[in-house]
Amino acid sequence: MRWIRFTANGKTSYGILEDDRVAEVTGDPFAGHERTARSHALGAVKLEVPVIPRTFYCAGLNYTAHIKEMAARRTVQPNIPEKPDIGYRANNALIAHGEPIVIPYDATEKINYEGELVVVIGKQAKHLTEANALSCVLGYTIGNDFSERTWQKSDRTLWRAKNTDTFKPMGPWIETAVDLDAMETIVRVNGTPTTHFKTNDMLFGIATFISAMTRYLTLYPGDVMWMGTDGVSPDLKPGDVVDVEITGIGTLSNPIAAEQR
Amino acid sequence: MRWIRFTANGKTSYGILEDDRVAEVTGDPFAGHERTARSHALGAVKLEVPVIPRTFYCAGLNYTAHIKEMAARRTVQPNIPEKPDIGYRANNALIAHGEPIVIPYDATEKINYEGELVVVIGKQAKHLTEANALSCVLGYTIGNDFSERTWQKSDRTLWRAKNTDTFKPMGPWIETAVDLDAMETIVRVNGTPTTHFKTNDMLFGIATFISAMTRYLTLYPGDVMWMGTDGVSPDLKPGDVVDVEITGIGTLSNPIAAEQR
Repeated sequence: MRWIRFTANGKTSYGILEDDRVAEVTGDPFAGHERTARSHALGAVKLEVPVIPRTFYCAGLNYTAHIKEMAARRTVQPNIPEKPDIGYRANNALIAHGEPIVIPYDATEKINYEGELVVVIGKQAKHLTEANALSCVLGYTIGNDFSERTWQKSDRTLWRAKNTDTFKPMGPWIETAVDLDAMETIVRVNGTPTTHFKTNDMLFGIATFISAMTRYLTLYPGDVMWMGTDGVSPDLKPGDVVDVEITGIGTLSNPIAAEQR
Repeated sequence: MRWIRFTANGKTSYGILEDDRVAEVTGDPFAGHERTARSHALGAVKLEVPVIPRTFYCAGLNYTAHIKEMAARRTVQPNIPEKPDIGYRANNALIAHGEPIVIPYDATEKINYEGELVVVIGKQAKHLTEANALSCVLGYTIGNDFSERTWQKSDRTLWRAKNTDTFKPMGPWIETAVDLDAMETIVRVNGTPTTHFKTNDMLFGIATFISAMTRYLTLYPGDVMWMGTDGVSPDLKPGDVVDVEITGIGTLSNPIAAEQR
């Protein structure tokens, strides 16, 4: 089942995507919903970010090849995490499928994508075990953890390197039924594949993270967890289009634009 | 003017605090409000966190004495930030004035307070200058950036050191009219003053942060910025009560409790 958040006729709603039709609902997938009599052609609605999370979690370093290749680029020793310490990203940076990623005019050429699986929490949860961790998950979407690598090195935090406005595309929708072990992540730049990895080939899996996190914190409906990326990105430039496909979910596509001075 | 968020008769609302009475409003201080005919005695309502932010910003290291003393404790060189790189905290950890801070049973004895001025954003803002930065501010409240120092050293991120459930008391209310240069921050443990500093004696001031941040990101109504702390905390224990007073705002008071196994 695919949950979609969309705007039609000036109103933003949730809907259920069935083939190319969106069945509009009242309410939302978290607190409860009812189908309305209204439906829309998918091509006729504006897609929105599938959810604005209460807390925006991000695993950061969670695939071994990415960690080693990023360290080699910086000529430092790879620092492989020894336990699932979750990090954060910021809501201001979220944009929907199709919306432009806008590069500030003072950014360097070191602008990269990171294609990531996103876990969407459906139920309030604390003290879950690895065995029952996935019981709090509503479904999965796709994120692009867009990054300015020069700022990532120079700044004390990741605030502008990772959280500049528009640097966090998420979507296009939430898929509730996936086969994690069968999924593959493919990133394309202007249609050419540039990164390809098994989505679930993570250093620490989703259940491991949820179990560790909920020892200390409560997950809430609508929270999201971005699960990290593998491989490395070529340097990108305004005019490029980045597609992040995760098989079984769909494709998140965003053009890159330059900030107008 | 003091904005308060409270629950009475099972309903959570905003109100305006006048002496010891809360005038209930419909709406909120951000999108607009209207006074109702209902009012409550302050002592008869349950105080709530003044706002759940869209993004929860935190300056982290922003007072020189705190940075030097924390570095001395760790026997490392102090790392004074050279520019205003904002950081983040997490909404799951927020609690209201009066609610208990609960220490996980596997925490060490290195549990500390950090009394902080909190800026509450009232208007959407981007590209502000230092001269007009404060135009987006609704008012000010108080935060206690509660921390487990052993985890702060051992973990790759600050997730459980700073963002364990209940580790972010905020309140008691939002004061819109302050004299920043006249304010003093006083922290008391069980009534005894243990930290005292001039609130505005910051490495980078509020206007400097807002101007730097809004070069790259949009601030939204309800966002909060915790401005950092000075001095150092004694180690705290369950049973202690921590009061953070900022003159001109009020006092945020929270007891410390132990997690029940």
